[in-house]
Amino acid sequence: MSLNLQTYTEHFTNPLYLESGRILEPYDITYETYGALNDDKSNVVVVCHALTGSHHAAGLYENETKSGWWDGFIGSGKAIDTDKYFVICSNVIGSCFGSTGPMSLQHPYQEPYRYKFPVVSIKDMVKAQRILFDRLDIHRVHAIVGGSMGGMQALQFAIHYPNFANKIIALATTHATQPWAIAFNKVAQESILNDPDFKQGYYDPDLLKEQGLSGMAVGRMAGHISFLSHESMRKKFGRDYKLTDGLYELFGKFQVESYLEYNGYNFTKWFDPLAYLYITKAINIYDLSRGFDSLAEALKRVTSTLSLISFRNDLLFRNFEMKEVADELKKIGNKNYTYIDVESDYGHDAFLVELNKFEKHVKDALNG
Amino acid sequence: MSLNLQTYTEHFTNPLYLESGRILEPYDITYETYGALNDDKSNVVVVCHALTGSHHAAGLYENETKSGWWDGFIGSGKAIDTDKYFVICSNVIGSCFGSTGPMSLQHPYQEPYRYKFPVVSIKDMVKAQRILFDRLDIHRVHAIVGGSMGGMQALQFAIHYPNFANKIIALATTHATQPWAIAFNKVAQESILNDPDFKQGYYDPDLLKEQGLSGMAVGRMAGHISFLSHESMRKKFGRDYKLTDGLYELFGKFQVESYLEYNGYNFTKWFDPLAYLYITKAINIYDLSRGFDSLAEALKRVTSTLSLISFRNDLLFRNFEMKEVADELKKIGNKNYTYIDVESDYGHDAFLVELNKFEKHVKDALNG
Repeated sequence: MSLNLQTYTEHFTNPLYLESGRILEPYDITYETYGALNDDKSNVVVVCHALTGSHHAAGLYENETKSGWWDGFIGSGKAIDTDKYFVICSNVIGSCFGSTGPMSLQHPYQEPYRYKFPVVSIKDMVKAQRILFDRLDIHRVHAIVGGSMGGMQALQFAIHYPNFANKIIALATTHATQPWAIAFNKVAQESILNDPDFKQGYYDPDLLKEQGLSGMAVGRMAGHISFLSHESMRKKFGRDYKLTDGLYELFGKFQVESYLEYNGYNFTKWFDPLAYLYITKAINIYDLSRGFDSLAEALKRVTSTLSLISFRNDLLFRNFEMKEVADELKKIGNKNYTYIDVESDYGHDAFLVELNKFEKHVKDALNG
Repeated sequence: MSLNLQTYTEHFTNPLYLESGRILEPYDITYETYGALNDDKSNVVVVCHALTGSHHAAGLYENETKSGWWDGFIGSGKAIDTDKYFVICSNVIGSCFGSTGPMSLQHPYQEPYRYKFPVVSIKDMVKAQRILFDRLDIHRVHAIVGGSMGGMQALQFAIHYPNFANKIIALATTHATQPWAIAFNKVAQESILNDPDFKQGYYDPDLLKEQGLSGMAVGRMAGHISFLSHESMRKKFGRDYKLTDGLYELFGKFQVESYLEYNGYNFTKWFDPLAYLYITKAINIYDLSRGFDSLAEALKRVTSTLSLISFRNDLLFRNFEMKEVADELKKIGNKNYTYIDVESDYGHDAFLVELNKFEKHVKDALNG
């Protein structure tokens, strides 16, 4: 069967009450769906995206050369089988692909929010999605699946809307963002803020589209270090040198340098720097235990079946962070979870790249 | 006995033939000594410094509030005992603390070299030191000790001047810089180059002294991630938040963010950005096997006793990199080495911070 890719934007006029006490009003949520909703609406799978991802998780638009970010995972006969499931993936609030974010026009001024945009949290992102599903008359889903920041959303759903999903599948993520991840985000944030072209958010969007923001490019390079592992970098690049440059030229380049340059400068042409500041902030302040006495107290609310999947050499969200969740679940007597540490050398991005290493686990979790 | 700290600068008019085929001429080397040279000159210990270190390894100048970078390690009764040894530490060429580097005046133009400075390698740094020791009429030394880039120098000495040192002690270093270390350097380099105040090396030195170079500050922040470990960051910072800032303020700060800001912006007031570009380049192209068929062939030249010391959670120079040297030595039948992996959670900077965890090894290696 075809993927049946559909893209929509829903507009909400009721205020969204944020964790900070502030309000977002009005707001839009852009989302995609794949497959078909069954009659009793029992086949919904929610997919949540990571920091720089979007609602475009699978399929190919016209004129597009690269498919959605989890295309190998979502589709007919794939791990998240669209012959069976109706898949919804929405762009998080704070992002820059259609849902309301810092570059959206603030009502009623019709000027971009920029720094006037409120800080949103992972909990707020989840709340907005919950309201979207209400609008779609979906009040319970089969599963919520996500990796990295998507996994944070999945876990936050499990705690704050405990009766909403039968199954929660969280990959390559954590229960609370740790200082090393905050540190990588800090490098990117500082690099954006220091870029004179950023102009405290009053940057020229046309300039950005043309040449990008070098500060964000550098920040993204640091990010790429955290997405890989020592092992995968050695395998991918070793000490290979671009032959056209002399070893003793100050600006001669190793392959790993070319890789970072390409990915850094390319990134800055398609992602918004203000959205980067706001979403990394959301990641930094993410902590499942906030509002509870402890992580254990938070986890006591969970009624969904939890599948926790970590990746052995993930340097951004270390495998022991998921293990910590599993250990807490065990302590509080929850028997309705599985924890798997995937044997992968790739690093954090394994959840996007080495699908074959964990798709069986996700299939089992979804269908079991 | 007193440390007997002495600082000197030697001027050399003969050309230094560099690995690149280029020439440095004339050049200066600034160095410090501690302790006293004995009659038969058999008590010399050479200490080599890391990327941003200097010849000022121990003791306190007048008006100085912070001692030399290895003060806990060098002195009367300390691991490198100045009652016994005559210690020499010189500033590497390419640096910015007295030895000739990119901001030195180019003869005969009396203008700073800037980008006209030749790329120097670790091998060149070692060669220049060897020439300095010749000038000092020191033709053989008891030991050469260094960590990080200092360890690279120690190992390079062992291979290129095999009859020069009785003992080589290399800590927290590698036989060839790996892509992750190059990647961290790349972030710093790009960040410096993109800073409009850098002006392709034509920056205003006064401006730098006053406010620093924000691009270098950001690059240094990335560096600091590589100097620590996940474990030490968790212990040092956890998710502690600066109370004066609200969690939901976009620019509110976690402790780890304050740490990076402080160290990043402070660094840029005392280190030269061109020197940073040149020395990270030297680190990137460092490979003991260059000019040989293999690392094993290079290591066959070694006649000194080698002490290889790695740190378990070093994320910059992984412990297995030193193990690889040990394995090659074993394969070629060298029985004159020891390899120790220090049980430390601190990360790369353990060689500067957790002296108590390895000083016994260094003492044993020096005195054994």
